[in-house]
Amino acid sequence: MPPQYAPSLRSRLAPLLLFLQTGFIIVFAFYTEIERNGNADDFSKCYPEFQDVNVIVILGFGFLGTFLVRHGFSGSGFNLLVAAMATQWALILNGVESLYDRGRLRIDLKSLVVAEMCTASALISIGAVLGKTNPVQLILIGLLEVSGFILNKWLLQLLLNTQLLISIMMLHIFGSLFGLMLTGILYRKGSERRFEKEKFDTKMGLFSMLGTVFLWMFWPSFNSVLVDDWPPGRKLGAVCSTYLALAVSAVTAAAVSVLSNPKGKLNLIHLQSCILAGGVAVGVSMSAVRHPWEAMIIGFAAAIISSVGFQYLKIHMLLAFQCHDTCAILSSHALPGLLGWLAHLVLQIKDSDDHTVAIRFAVFHICSLLITIALSVTLGILTGLLIRLKFWRPPQYNKCFDDQAFWEFSHLVVRK
Amino acid sequence: MPPQYAPSLRSRLAPLLLFLQTGFIIVFAFYTEIERNGNADDFSKCYPEFQDVNVIVILGFGFLGTFLVRHGFSGSGFNLLVAAMATQWALILNGVESLYDRGRLRIDLKSLVVAEMCTASALISIGAVLGKTNPVQLILIGLLEVSGFILNKWLLQLLLNTQLLISIMMLHIFGSLFGLMLTGILYRKGSERRFEKEKFDTKMGLFSMLGTVFLWMFWPSFNSVLVDDWPPGRKLGAVCSTYLALAVSAVTAAAVSVLSNPKGKLNLIHLQSCILAGGVAVGVSMSAVRHPWEAMIIGFAAAIISSVGFQYLKIHMLLAFQCHDTCAILSSHALPGLLGWLAHLVLQIKDSDDHTVAIRFAVFHICSLLITIALSVTLGILTGLLIRLKFWRPPQYNKCFDDQAFWEFSHLVVRK
Amino acid sequence: MPPQYAPSLRSRLAPLLLFLQTGFIIVFAFYTEIERNGNADDFSKCYPEFQDVNVIVILGFGFLGTFLVRHGFSGSGFNLLVAAMATQWALILNGVESLYDRGRLRIDLKSLVVAEMCTASALISIGAVLGKTNPVQLILIGLLEVSGFILNKWLLQLLLNTQLLISIMMLHIFGSLFGLMLTGILYRKGSERRFEKEKFDTKMGLFSMLGTVFLWMFWPSFNSVLVDDWPPGRKLGAVCSTYLALAVSAVTAAAVSVLSNPKGKLNLIHLQSCILAGGVAVGVSMSAVRHPWEAMIIGFAAAIISSVGFQYLKIHMLLAFQCHDTCAILSSHALPGLLGWLAHLVLQIKDSDDHTVAIRFAVFHICSLLITIALSVTLGILTGLLIRLKFWRPPQYNKCFDDQAFWEFSHLVVRK
Repeated sequence: MPPQYAPSLRSRLAPLLLFLQTGFIIVFAFYTEIERNGNADDFSKCYPEFQDVNVIVILGFGFLGTFLVRHGFSGSGFNLLVAAMATQWALILNGVESLYDRGRLRIDLKSLVVAEMCTASALISIGAVLGKTNPVQLILIGLLEVSGFILNKWLLQLLLNTQLLISIMMLHIFGSLFGLMLTGILYRKGSERRFEKEKFDTKMGLFSMLGTVFLWMFWPSFNSVLVDDWPPGRKLGAVCSTYLALAVSAVTAAAVSVLSNPKGKLNLIHLQSCILAGGVAVGVSMSAVRHPWEAMIIGFAAAIISSVGFQYLKIHMLLAFQCHDTCAILSSHALPGLLGWLAHLVLQIKDSDDHTVAIRFAVFHICSLLITIALSVTLGILTGLLIRLKFWRPPQYNKCFDDQAFWEFSHLVVRK
Repeated sequence: MPPQYAPSLRSRLAPLLLFLQTGFIIVFAFYTEIERNGNADDFSKCYPEFQDVNVIVILGFGFLGTFLVRHGFSGSGFNLLVAAMATQWALILNGVESLYDRGRLRIDLKSLVVAEMCTASALISIGAVLGKTNPVQLILIGLLEVSGFILNKWLLQLLLNTQLLISIMMLHIFGSLFGLMLTGILYRKGSERRFEKEKFDTKMGLFSMLGTVFLWMFWPSFNSVLVDDWPPGRKLGAVCSTYLALAVSAVTAAAVSVLSNPKGKLNLIHLQSCILAGGVAVGVSMSAVRHPWEAMIIGFAAAIISSVGFQYLKIHMLLAFQCHDTCAILSSHALPGLLGWLAHLVLQIKDSDDHTVAIRFAVFHICSLLITIALSVTLGILTGLLIRLKFWRPPQYNKCFDDQAFWEFSHLVVRK
Repeated sequence: MPPQYAPSLRSRLAPLLLFLQTGFIIVFAFYTEIERNGNADDFSKCYPEFQDVNVIVILGFGFLGTFLVRHGFSGSGFNLLVAAMATQWALILNGVESLYDRGRLRIDLKSLVVAEMCTASALISIGAVLGKTNPVQLILIGLLEVSGFILNKWLLQLLLNTQLLISIMMLHIFGSLFGLMLTGILYRKGSERRFEKEKFDTKMGLFSMLGTVFLWMFWPSFNSVLVDDWPPGRKLGAVCSTYLALAVSAVTAAAVSVLSNPKGKLNLIHLQSCILAGGVAVGVSMSAVRHPWEAMIIGFAAAIISSVGFQYLKIHMLLAFQCHDTCAILSSHALPGLLGWLAHLVLQIKDSDDHTVAIRFAVFHICSLLITIALSVTLGILTGLLIRLKFWRPPQYNKCFDDQAFWEFSHLVVRK
């Protein structure tokens, strides 16, 4: 059999990028302006948190995806590319409402932060199909996922009057369910066995550890950036709660990793997937967490659920549902996200004195979950069907998880 | 001889982690609360500095310890694990006093920062025994060291009325002496020769450089975060002094490295150990440094002492005192810390007009050093004796500095 | 032929470093003081931005230069060394004026930031000769370039009354032209062919990606840190404009990379050189950019020009002008910088209602470019002639791009 070269991207990727980018520039030229009435103090208060979120989205998610031995360039490079596209698109979509009201789509630091968080939900989805898709597909997934997520946010606000913080934090649930549906639809025969090149390496493990550590360090900013600091101390509470939840889930994930391993060893990929579970769960339940110990218990439970999901559900999903999940987003985002949703419900009901209010809240809360699930599953399936078309020239089976399909390697040193 | 497998951690590590973590959650549930009366402005002022300290503790110390070729996972992973445990423990211990006063252990950003700095002292100790201990031992060392350090801080405040800034900055001296005692007690026969796997690698050198560079960049925050900005400009002074001292010690360390090398070459591990010496020494003498040039001279002297320690004392310590010091904490923390203590004494006496005040200060200052040394040495020896027990299943001699003893390596790519 | 060892650095590097460092300390001791009348609020507002610039200069430029397989230690280590020297020197030179006025050279965060930006211009120059020079030469280049750049800034301010922001942002044009002249003068016969060790590696590509990503993330701080926030919103505008320009140039660079590659693949080194072009161009034209879409168009054009320069001009420069440009500073700084200058001119003229003002501005603007080019070219040539002397013991041809010429590799693991 002659060697098979990966299909060229030139006729698909370049026109798509140039067309979309030109379109974005035109939209920005006619419809946006910088919000100039802001307070200078607000800028300096918000800017460091914006940068932390930026580091999470660009560096954290990017380097988290570098753990596969031949997939480092794609993991970090495509993440940057998708993030650069999706953030612009999210800025436009998020501004549509203010476009109606004021004729202009205003941009300030808060709108950039919200756009980056919408992008984060797309980057989570992409985690499920990483290595099995080409950049054209990834960009389409990114843009469609962001559109769906913003539609979901808008529906929740319109129908249920959900706060921005709560609807944005649905990003973990929305992004991961969208991604799981997608990878189910994109299933290729034969991938019950491991892909030939889906292998690790100690150095790549460290690059991926670097991404994880940045996510772990700056996650308190991710959870607190949209919290209103009123009454005073809310933001401090969000930071301390997230910090402690992350500490607890790092410790718990290590314990469960050792317990569930037959030789009693730690597993780095397992740790990288599960030490953030506490941060995810606390983020989703952020507006109901009052005390640090509540966050710590949520972090404890999230790390256990996430670890169990990683160890037992991942392989089950693959065999039973033909759902190959590269970055284990089921255990790192979907399960902790659902747990956070549940914790929010329980905490809010516990805190209500009035039965009517509690029931009303529960109904709204359950509806918001159902809407999110329905929308993410539907749109994930539709996106999957679109992406599966041969037109996009997906990489062949034996080119999956291989940088050489998309990146030029000239003047590369040859190891003898 | 049959191949020896490293002893399983399962029956030791998992119960220890789960037991301690559950205990911490219970303590937090009953005795802590978020400080809600803080000023919102204080939060936004302090938060970026808190994150810089967080980066130093988690990323900086973590990746600094990855320079050994087969020890990257342990270097970065165990650092995270110990930091997550020790910070929680330090938060509890530091709050005991306010627990008596107000019935509650209040948590705010400052208490988190102080807890992280106590953790930093534990991470310094661990640098001496890295690669020769298992994670169970590391966690016990971390918790005992933090307890000892907080006891020391409390004694200094009680007996000598030492300021928080000064007693915290003793962390370099306390942590390094504690670690050196520990590694002396844990000495294994045969380690006068190099361990078989105690080797470097160019890629690992770069990971370690990354950690060093983060420490170097954010060290001004580490030194200034606890400085009260009164009179105005104190904090700016701390930042500028630390910055200049670090610049001077980077340049000086490079010069000494070239001078002391037989072939006139630079040594990366030497640089990584010594370019921070200026920051350490200025940190210890921070409350007496008034002018940037004082900091620069301290940085110059610190880099020379640290380099001499690295080149000549390290091997002497091993042969004469049977003290194997993996991360060279003697030269990177103990010597610059002691120099900083001396510089503080000299500067304070130079600045006093009154003889009585100067002598009184000198007595207090010498006492505080003696207490710190006595406590760190005693507790280091006691901890060493406890840790040496076979019960903790330390790794065999030929499994030292080897990730495979503790980490699972499945689906690892095989280099032919 | 016997093996050739690289010449020892001991007799050159160590005396130079110690002599200069001692001199700097003496100057600081007699002539500088910390600015203590500053507002505490200003400190906390400016500190996070200062740290972002610090990360760009130390980590970003340092790790950007690690893409060559055997040159990682030199790339990151020498960058740190030159930055530590050049920043001190720039602090002194920038303060000379205030030394005349007030008898003291005052240091505050702003003067540190300006000094780091002058250092950035030296680090850009060094990018052109990286791997072909020894650290002694690099330090001399760094100090001379910084002197030249500050002379240029001072001339622009004296003759044309140019604002600080505009004269500092000339750093891209000044640094890159200086570096290109330098590398032209330092040309060695035979380097039309590739150097033997000028090769890449996937892992080194990721280290370099890490540096690029940090530059990309924190570039908004680099462009906005010197923008006065008056009228309010100027700084926010600078941040948003830079962010969007960077996003656009990342997308555009990827598109052009695919289009210009014969196999339709992406090229990581190309991306790393070109995704920052938008940030550079917007930085140079910062004081005239009013709307984000202007920045986006500048980013689009900059990425295209930079990519074309990388793909076609780089090799042309080498063959026609004997100018070997290691880090492709022509395409990553010179071309986008010139484009930014042009964009500034066009935008400013478009915004002026009055013809006289517009022409006056154009004349001043063209003069400032001519002065910058004349000074950078002249000083680059003079520096090149000085650096070319055999006295500095440059590395032999076959030791270029090799860490082993300058770094000790003891206890290195041997790959069988």
